[in-house]
Formats: sequence, structure tokens, C-alpha cells
Amino acid sequence: MEIKVLRNILDANDALAAENRRLFDQHHVTVLNLMSSPGAGKTALLECTLDALKGTLAMGVIEGDVATRYDADRIGRHDVPVLQINTGGDCHLDANMVHHALEQFPLQGLDLVFIENVGNLVCPAGFALGEDAKVTVLSVAEGDDKPEKYPAMFQESAAVVINKTDLLPYTDFDLTAAVRRAHEINPRLVTFPLSCKTKEGLEPWLKWVRSMVARHQP
Amino acid sequence: MEIKVLRNILDANDALAAENRRLFDQHHVTVLNLMSSPGAGKTALLECTLDALKGTLAMGVIEGDVATRYDADRIGRHDVPVLQINTGGDCHLDANMVHHALEQFPLQGLDLVFIENVGNLVCPAGFALGEDAKVTVLSVAEGDDKPEKYPAMFQESAAVVINKTDLLPYTDFDLTAAVRRAHEINPRLVTFPLSCKTKEGLEPWLKWVRSMVARHQP
Repeated sequence: MEIKVLRNILDANDALAAENRRLFDQHHVTVLNLMSSPGAGKTALLECTLDALKGTLAMGVIEGDVATRYDADRIGRHDVPVLQINTGGDCHLDANMVHHALEQFPLQGLDLVFIENVGNLVCPAGFALGEDAKVTVLSVAEGDDKPEKYPAMFQESAAVVINKTDLLPYTDFDLTAAVRRAHEINPRLVTFPLSCKTKEGLEPWLKWVRSMVARHQP
Repeated sequence: MEIKVLRNILDANDALAAENRRLFDQHHVTVLNLMSSPGAGKTALLECTLDALKGTLAMGVIEGDVATRYDADRIGRHDVPVLQINTGGDCHLDANMVHHALEQFPLQGLDLVFIENVGNLVCPAGFALGEDAKVTVLSVAEGDDKPEKYPAMFQESAAVVINKTDLLPYTDFDLTAAVRRAHEINPRLVTFPLSCKTKEGLEPWLKWVRSMVARHQP
């Protein structure tokens, strides 16, 4: 029975994700679903991405958290519409939560919406939200063995941001090995080593984000 | 129906956790359940704890991972019995997985068993395994806002290890704020800032582990 219920939940999620997708398409909005462990730097990546792209793209952010609205408050300082979803203990966003959020989040005029998922390197991978692409953020402080230890996340993603490269001198993280291991799990992954603190490596990531938006413009 | 199934699952888990507990008590074994985000350093903490306590305590380790047996291989080099559980995609260990593991993991003669949970700061908090205490490991690279953002983990734990303090000079982690925030979530928490790399701060943690074992000795 457990398996049947899980299947029902995932089917219902997929149906709602398709509805979200129709809504995004109707407004020509590109949507990126950011996923990572807690503290890998999703919010910091959003902050520097919003700052770098403002004036050229109209952006919005939907924040997912188990509790608090700390991340929404950080994003709100960057002059973009932001909406906080609190999952009330749930370990991931699902399409239904995003669907309800969209009732209060006008898509008109936006080019790009980031959805910041709950910090969790396992569960969010299983739940489509209607996004154009999933992006995994991996901090160098977490270790280069993570792609193989948490494969679903890397299999489902189109891109991996390897964040906090400013910490490389102080960790035993092997950047070449991390990229190779990610490609062993998913050969189509594009990888962006960068530091939100020093801004080193940010430009290739921004270029990829712009290219994702360009595919969607009418 | 979903809620009822979840309730049934948690009730069944509690019943099996109680069975595990009886088995641990029968052998006077203390069990610590280590939980954290991916890459916070649970395995490194185990490695330096095993090295520091060997000769004085008989220890064993049960490793939980979504995939791979990397962690069991690391632990195996420290001359202790180790058993790897692969959850096959599941985001946490449950009492049933540990129950089956115990069929192949002799407890005779052991004083202390560490269970290293799946790297996940949300889901493992909800599943009792029969342990004496849950311990949360938080890396300073993750940020000092984590207790409030992931409260269940900190509410369920008896102790928090704040790991990788060697990275403090290179991050904006506020150690005093992190401890305060953890205590706001759970005033009973004991906190151990330490570095597995430099071994600074290790002794108070080891003393606490020894005191947990002493409570159990006949």
C-alpha cells in the first residue's frame, strides 16, 4: 500500500507540475529550480546572480524553506518580487506548493523565476515543479564524493554550480575529481565552479542562465 | 489517506526502534545516531573519535548511505567492525533497516555503536532507531542560521557538534550566534565546537561520549 500511495503522490505531482509549466509558458517565463544541501550557498548564488543580471532581465524568486523567512528577507533586499513558501516540516517543495504560491505571485512581465528548494540533497530531486531545468549547488566544503553518494540529484539536474571555490585552499576538495564524478553520474551536466564571495567564475554561469532565458523568449 | 499511512509507518518504526533498544540494552551497548547535512563531516568525526577512544572502548559503526560504500571503507581502516546500509534512494535510516543490519552485526563485547545516518538535515530527525541519543553535526561552512531553518533536527538531538572550526577565519559563521540559536530551539543541547582536522576542541566531545557510555555500563 505504501508504494501505491507514493505512486499516487508522484502522479498527482506530475499533473500539477504540468499545470505550472503551462502557466510559465503562457507568460514566456524561464524557471530554474535550485537544489542543494543546507548551507551550500543557494541564496548567496541567487543574490549575486540577481545583482549581475538586473537591468537586463526581469526576475523573481520563490523561496522554499522548512521554517523561517530568512532567505526571502535576504532576497527582498535585491529589489525583486519574492515569495516565501514554508513547507511546515516537509523536506522538499512539491508542484502543489508552487501552484498555490503562483496564485499570489504575478508572472506578468517576468523573464526568469528562480525557485530555491529546501536544503536537502536527496528528496527534492524526485519532485518536478514545472521548471525548465534543475540546478544542483555543491559547496567545496562538502567534499568531492557527493555526486556518487547522492546520485539522483545529479542525474536530474542540467547544471551543477560548484560553489565556495574561495575555500579550495583550506579543504581537500579535488575540483577535477568532482567534475569527473559528476559526469560519471550524468554526462550531460554542465558544471560551473565559482565563488559568490570573490565573484570568480561567475560569468560562465550568468551566460548559461541568459542562454536558458533566450530559448524561451517569443 | 496519506496522513494515515504516514502515521502507520511512524508507529511501525517506533515499535521496531523499541526492539532494537531491547537488543542494545541486553548487550549494555550505548548507541549514538549521527545526523547532518551531506559533507558536514560525520565520517571524519567518527574517524578521529575512533582513533582517540580505541583501547579504552570497544566500538562498532553502522553506516547509512543512499548509495556507495565509501564511508564504510573509510571507517574499516580504523580496525572496528563496520556494516554499510544502502537505503536504495531513501533519504534516512529507519528502525527496520537497522534491525536487519543487527542480524549481521554482533553486539557481543561492544561498548559503543555509532550509527551514521544519511546526510540530510530534515528527514532523519523523524525516525527513531533505538539509539541512546541523536547527535547533529553542523559544519561552519553551512552558516549559523541552520538551527532555526532546520529546527526538528536540533529539537531531537542531545548534542550538536559544530565541526570544521578550522574554517572559521574564512567564513562569516558566528560561533556565539550559532550556539545561541541552537539553544533557542532546544535549551538542553550540549554543543561541541571542534575541528577534526586540527583536533582542537575534540576533548570535551570525547568526554561527553565517554559519559554516555558510562551511564550504560552494568
